[in-house]
Amino acid sequence: MASKLQRLFVKSPMGTGAEIALLPEQAHYLGNVLRLKPGDHVLVFNGADGEWCARLTAIGKKKAQIAVEHQTRPQGQGPDLHYLFAPIKRARLDYMAQKATEMGVSRLQPAITRRTVAERVNTDRLKANAIEAAEQCGILRVPEVCPPEKLSKLLDHWDESRLLIFADEAAAAASPIEALSAQTARPLAVLIGPEGGFDTEERNALMRQPFVLPISLGPRVMRADTASVACLALVNAVLGDWR
Amino acid sequence: MASKLQRLFVKSPMGTGAEIALLPEQAHYLGNVLRLKPGDHVLVFNGADGEWCARLTAIGKKKAQIAVEHQTRPQGQGPDLHYLFAPIKRARLDYMAQKATEMGVSRLQPAITRRTVAERVNTDRLKANAIEAAEQCGILRVPEVCPPEKLSKLLDHWDESRLLIFADEAAAAASPIEALSAQTARPLAVLIGPEGGFDTEERNALMRQPFVLPISLGPRVMRADTASVACLALVNAVLGDWR
Repeated sequence: MASKLQRLFVKSPMGTGAEIALLPEQAHYLGNVLRLKPGDHVLVFNGADGEWCARLTAIGKKKAQIAVEHQTRPQGQGPDLHYLFAPIKRARLDYMAQKATEMGVSRLQPAITRRTVAERVNTDRLKANAIEAAEQCGILRVPEVCPPEKLSKLLDHWDESRLLIFADEAAAAASPIEALSAQTARPLAVLIGPEGGFDTEERNALMRQPFVLPISLGPRVMRADTASVACLALVNAVLGDWR
Repeated sequence: MASKLQRLFVKSPMGTGAEIALLPEQAHYLGNVLRLKPGDHVLVFNGADGEWCARLTAIGKKKAQIAVEHQTRPQGQGPDLHYLFAPIKRARLDYMAQKATEMGVSRLQPAITRRTVAERVNTDRLKANAIEAAEQCGILRVPEVCPPEKLSKLLDHWDESRLLIFADEAAAAASPIEALSAQTARPLAVLIGPEGGFDTEERNALMRQPFVLPISLGPRVMRADTASVACLALVNAVLGDWR
């Protein structure tokens, strides 16, 4: 479903006439894998200035240069939707970062819970996965990646205007659509717990917060990466930008 | 989120006192990886008779035998929900079969579309992935896996009492919740197209069917495996067993 022109995330400011040096790995990919030549076009975005068409002006083994020509899409606003997740094993964590980006989240926040197995989180790798998903899926906003933080600390410092929706395995089997529909428009966050679910005390602490909404994701247990796409889909459809 | 006892899918009829020989790979996993011994317990299910606790009576390098003791969960009915999908590349297809199983679909039906790249589909591998997801996620019903069929032929032979919901990239940006809520209870199917979307003529043929409901999955392009979890979540929440 990608655009026909290769899309690249770049960190530089964007505008007609801007000349940008690409990263060595981008140069390698364009030159050695796609075999592009000077004069060929790519699409570039920096997460802030929309999407632009650019012309390759030079390309070597590890270096490439582009000249930005014209804007192809303005920068859109995505939902104000933070995504908090207990880190899981690497392959599924890669996947989770990609999927959350496709679902349009604005922030990836690893949350260390009592049952979190993987305490070390490679935030550079999360960022790379988010960028890859944005490049491939035509997304203009790359989510901000925050360093891991204990869930208890995140709750202590929570901005109470932001609704925190969590997929609660212990929730009564009530309609998640009804629960979400009863909420008014406000900044949002979705929290997906660790494999094995939240510790009882931890769940109780969550339930005590006035800004927390537990929702049920049905009668079947799901892996954390499945639950995250499912929960983000419901939130986008009822409260986000899928309406 | 798995049960603490290892869960195994077996093909044998189930009941107290039944003695079942496990597959060589199951014997290997229980004996050499988990290091279980005779007398240890496992959970077994066959997709029809619920979940049972069984005792290992013998275990060798490639052979193991269990004696079924008592039922731990009755066989539940899942949603009558077929899942039609254009085959994609292998790693993501594995993932898609696992995710659809977690979402509770009753049938996996590969549908060959005009833009389908992977014409060959390994149905044994789809089945193995569905079983793996069912084992790990406490699911009792393993979806039926059907051989690949052309989408046009599937439409020609469609049972019109079954609603076919498809994630339509070209759909007007309308609320998918409203579109689904307007439907009455009936057997369901979800169709996810190929990367690159449906061919125009193919989409027109879909739109002409009285049993087809197109829904929008928002303003961002998603990979097919993401769209499938998102679409199945909305369908389960509005028309399926998440209510």
